[in-house]
Amino acid sequence: MNAKIKQYLSFIVEIDKVKSIFRKSRLFDRSRFENDAEHSWTICVMAVLFSEFAKERFNLERVLLMLLLHDVVEVDAGDTFLYAPERSGAAERERAAAERIFGLLDPPLRDLFRGAWEEFEARETPEARYAAVFDRLEPVYQNYLNEGSTWKEHGITYDMVVGANRHMAEGAPEIWAFVLELLEDAVNRGFLSR
Amino acid sequence: MNAKIKQYLSFIVEIDKVKSIFRKSRLFDRSRFENDAEHSWTICVMAVLFSEFAKERFNLERVLLMLLLHDVVEVDAGDTFLYAPERSGAAERERAAAERIFGLLDPPLRDLFRGAWEEFEARETPEARYAAVFDRLEPVYQNYLNEGSTWKEHGITYDMVVGANRHMAEGAPEIWAFVLELLEDAVNRGFLSR
Repeated sequence: MNAKIKQYLSFIVEIDKVKSIFRKSRLFDRSRFENDAEHSWTICVMAVLFSEFAKERFNLERVLLMLLLHDVVEVDAGDTFLYAPERSGAAERERAAAERIFGLLDPPLRDLFRGAWEEFEARETPEARYAAVFDRLEPVYQNYLNEGSTWKEHGITYDMVVGANRHMAEGAPEIWAFVLELLEDAVNRGFLSR
Repeated sequence: MNAKIKQYLSFIVEIDKVKSIFRKSRLFDRSRFENDAEHSWTICVMAVLFSEFAKERFNLERVLLMLLLHDVVEVDAGDTFLYAPERSGAAERERAAAERIFGLLDPPLRDLFRGAWEEFEARETPEARYAAVFDRLEPVYQNYLNEGSTWKEHGITYDMVVGANRHMAEGAPEIWAFVLELLEDAVNRGFLSR
């Protein structure tokens, strides 16, 4: 049997574990928590859909690669809540996970995948700044539609949401402006505390 | 509020329903059935990973667009088992679904998304032939690792699997050769009946 195909399938089986990594936010219909694979699919579609709102010209293929892979490190590191105090420790765990998981592949794929993950994390390219918008837009909108369920459960305030997500403006300023209006509305409706 | 952003988010909420559309195949770890969003994410990663096996040169961005969107019609049409006798009726239902769901968007996005879906279905371009490989490779490998669970539950035979999937050879001949070896092995191990 073709050894490369077997190796690639082993990688796929390994990263498939993200389907059992549940996030802190619920689906838009509030029926249950979302897993990392579902989240990644949604934000890939968003990145295509919202292209006209990107602040800078960008390569869509690169954006999609980053969004497809950005959460596979959670197979080892688990999901860390955006507002959790232990996020600095999470960065270390995620780096070790990237080393191990992308290390299941050989160059050049190992470097392509690892590079896409690093680029997304560093947020220093037009593609990474644009991709980051959707990693944040989805949970904000989920929480808005779910009447602030995750925000309420974890005592998240308006200032915390703005502080943790304001970099969205660097990728898509009009989307960030929309989010600010949404958050105002969430406060007015009692979904989010000031 | 920005009306376009609202429209795009409404589209995202609508297609999010695929997260409750369950396929006939289980996750690689056999823990539960897979939903359409999870399936779409996996086959997007596969399409990046297996690039070197494509029979023809292809545009990866187009392949990813097709794979991201190929199953959203199931929001209306439901999942139709590959080996189900009612598949011809399913094609009609899926066409109506494409009309409605992509019609939630305006041109040019409506036409871009609808066009990608049509192209995937028609399987007449290098991108569609390559994309189709992964829509089929994933469930075959899931069933192989799950000791043929779906095949056994539905009385699927070796000839049925070969007949329904042989077009994989048009997109990636070496992957099809691998699948044939896998199916032989599945027969030998008693996962699939001859």
